[in-house]
Amino acid sequence: MMGVVLVIIDGLGDEYIESLGGTPLDYASSRMRALNTMAAEGVCGIMHPISPGVPPSSDIGHLAIFGYDIRREYPGRGYFEAMGAGIRLKDGVAFRVNLATVERRGRNLIVIDRRAGRISGSDAEELYRALDAAIKERGLQAEIVHTFEHRGVLILRGEELCGAVCDTDPHEVGVPVLAAEPWDEISSGLREIAARVAAMINEITRLSYDVLEHHDINARRRREGLPPANIILVRGGGVARRIASFREKWGMRAAFVAAGPLYKGIARALGMDEMHVEGATGTPNTNLPGKVEACIRALDMGYDFVYLHIKGTDNLSHDKKPLEKAKFLMRIDEALSPLLDLEDVLIVVTGDHATSSIRGRHIGLPVPIVFWGTTHRDNVTRFSERECSRGCLGVLRGKDVMPLIMDLTDRSAELGTRPSKNLLLL
Amino acid sequence: MMGVVLVIIDGLGDEYIESLGGTPLDYASSRMRALNTMAAEGVCGIMHPISPGVPPSSDIGHLAIFGYDIRREYPGRGYFEAMGAGIRLKDGVAFRVNLATVERRGRNLIVIDRRAGRISGSDAEELYRALDAAIKERGLQAEIVHTFEHRGVLILRGEELCGAVCDTDPHEVGVPVLAAEPWDEISSGLREIAARVAAMINEITRLSYDVLEHHDINARRRREGLPPANIILVRGGGVARRIASFREKWGMRAAFVAAGPLYKGIARALGMDEMHVEGATGTPNTNLPGKVEACIRALDMGYDFVYLHIKGTDNLSHDKKPLEKAKFLMRIDEALSPLLDLEDVLIVVTGDHATSSIRGRHIGLPVPIVFWGTTHRDNVTRFSERECSRGCLGVLRGKDVMPLIMDLTDRSAELGTRPSKNLLLL
Repeated sequence: MMGVVLVIIDGLGDEYIESLGGTPLDYASSRMRALNTMAAEGVCGIMHPISPGVPPSSDIGHLAIFGYDIRREYPGRGYFEAMGAGIRLKDGVAFRVNLATVERRGRNLIVIDRRAGRISGSDAEELYRALDAAIKERGLQAEIVHTFEHRGVLILRGEELCGAVCDTDPHEVGVPVLAAEPWDEISSGLREIAARVAAMINEITRLSYDVLEHHDINARRRREGLPPANIILVRGGGVARRIASFREKWGMRAAFVAAGPLYKGIARALGMDEMHVEGATGTPNTNLPGKVEACIRALDMGYDFVYLHIKGTDNLSHDKKPLEKAKFLMRIDEALSPLLDLEDVLIVVTGDHATSSIRGRHIGLPVPIVFWGTTHRDNVTRFSERECSRGCLGVLRGKDVMPLIMDLTDRSAELGTRPSKNLLLL
Repeated sequence: MMGVVLVIIDGLGDEYIESLGGTPLDYASSRMRALNTMAAEGVCGIMHPISPGVPPSSDIGHLAIFGYDIRREYPGRGYFEAMGAGIRLKDGVAFRVNLATVERRGRNLIVIDRRAGRISGSDAEELYRALDAAIKERGLQAEIVHTFEHRGVLILRGEELCGAVCDTDPHEVGVPVLAAEPWDEISSGLREIAARVAAMINEITRLSYDVLEHHDINARRRREGLPPANIILVRGGGVARRIASFREKWGMRAAFVAAGPLYKGIARALGMDEMHVEGATGTPNTNLPGKVEACIRALDMGYDFVYLHIKGTDNLSHDKKPLEKAKFLMRIDEALSPLLDLEDVLIVVTGDHATSSIRGRHIGLPVPIVFWGTTHRDNVTRFSERECSRGCLGVLRGKDVMPLIMDLTDRSAELGTRPSKNLLLL
């Protein structure tokens, strides 16, 4: 059976950038070789991860592409974040956390930077540890751990917990930090539990400001002109839930190559096996050739399906750096070229959503997609949003990707046929 | 926040017309400026209001585009027609009515013209009044009122009424007027009620022939070579039902500019505020510049969203006048040009369905759509069915339009995020 490499370039699509004369991918694609070869020799389309105008978070975009039903099978982001940090949730509830920069104004805390200048390394590590110690000291049934850069996971322990509370993260700057509260549409049975969880989050958020605002590291950061990481922003509650594994769903043995904790968490939750790559960081300075090499190694090891995640494009869009995004796309293109030497492998390249390098946020425009390694082809010769929209696959949704992979690798069964699993015996 | 003007050109799409070398819009677009500029500077796609091959009535096309779920939220056309005529329904049921021309053949009445030559003005007014008087004289709990041209509304009063009865309008000519009867798939509880409503409609339809066939106005019309308006054709029962307002659904304060009663009724039912325009008629002789000016006025007044409806295109298609439709489209194009001077406004232009100028009826082909005023663009430089089908948005459905508007004006929330409504206080 044909192997599959699915490359998800995070936040691949974008808007028209005046100075680039197109999207970052338009700009990059005039100098790309591997991806344009795939477009020329394969079949293309554009893809709305969910539906037109609906910008998904990365985990939801991924799950849709992996063929999961978001309404029925989504356990909440925190679950994946915890899995990514190597934490087993059991009865608890986990939340995604950012270290962020706020300024006090009266009784409000105004968000200045949702990522505290992408604080990372030992600074971030130490601040998370200080907050965790304060949580323990106060006797709260909770822990907080650093994952990567500004990111972390907050876990509330205990029985009868749920993730149905609103984000304290306002998702924009210049506005106050929000108070966690139960979702509006919650069932009355869960409301009391959610209210308890929300109260804990609000207590820990206030505590984070107390602990971090005057922490030595932030005093030093201020002296160095860096934004202090003086609060945590909380979002995306999730509880442990049994999800059908990728193999149960699609019958393929899957491995993954990803550095970002969320993406590791998703892949682990779906039962994919991890391929370790030295120097893979989940940022633009990642070891791209190493990641591609790991994909080839996984195929050699007999995996049917390899998921490769590249995160840096999304970071650069959030930071409103379209030219750097375009340059990073060129490096991705170069790194992917060894895949063109593979035989009997389907290579699929797409994104989990578009991210605007102008607006610095996920947007609801479609992303291009290419399938290379099939016997089919169309008229597209360049891998970009506008060129792929002329591809023979037309306009896809995220949920169409896996059925197309199954079909293009001869794994699909004709709808209406139903071979038995048992043999007829004489 | 960016303002929005949504221009719905009724029956915008069409078929290939041999004599025009394309659709009326193809023909017009070779001479259009404003709409082609929007296409060149914005993003385009084609849109199936419902789904491919399904031609909606105008009210259903509109509701889908406004983001309403037709299966759950559609109260029936009569409700909108009544709202458009300024009639409060309360417990009654309303039907859309046409004055039409029939010829008696044995016990049948053969439809010659479904609109009695688009009868209008005092002729139509007086005939509706004569029929209303006859209804009252017979002691029926009903009223009929003229709205515009051949159009009117029939309201049955009383408790326990429903709209689940079939049309007496055969929707084609050369065939007999039909008898109202309950829908086949009606629940047994409603069947008796629907049977009562159907009987009343059949009685009023027979009465209309009695009253109108020998009416002086029709005698005069016959002498003048005009088709007599000697029957009413009834369709589209609707009862008053609470529908979520546009503001509840999308958070935008909305105004509307429309002359046709149905469109006024839809906009009023969704809680949009009316912008009055002198000389707006809902026909090709309407005051187009005045309507566009009213949109700009509404934005100046602080409305977030303005719905502009232009009806004449649909009328000309129903009357099988493709060249006149093309010329009217050129006038629309000219009238829309002041919109291009607006800043920080998203202009969206599309249709509620396609109408064939060959077949004189709504058809299930897609309509073009353009979004102008965004930072994004694609390769399309002309606003027509075939050019917009190459746009970067691909193939949309009506229900995708509002999510795209929300996203392109920065009003969308990332799926998976859920900012709280309350602030965290220290």
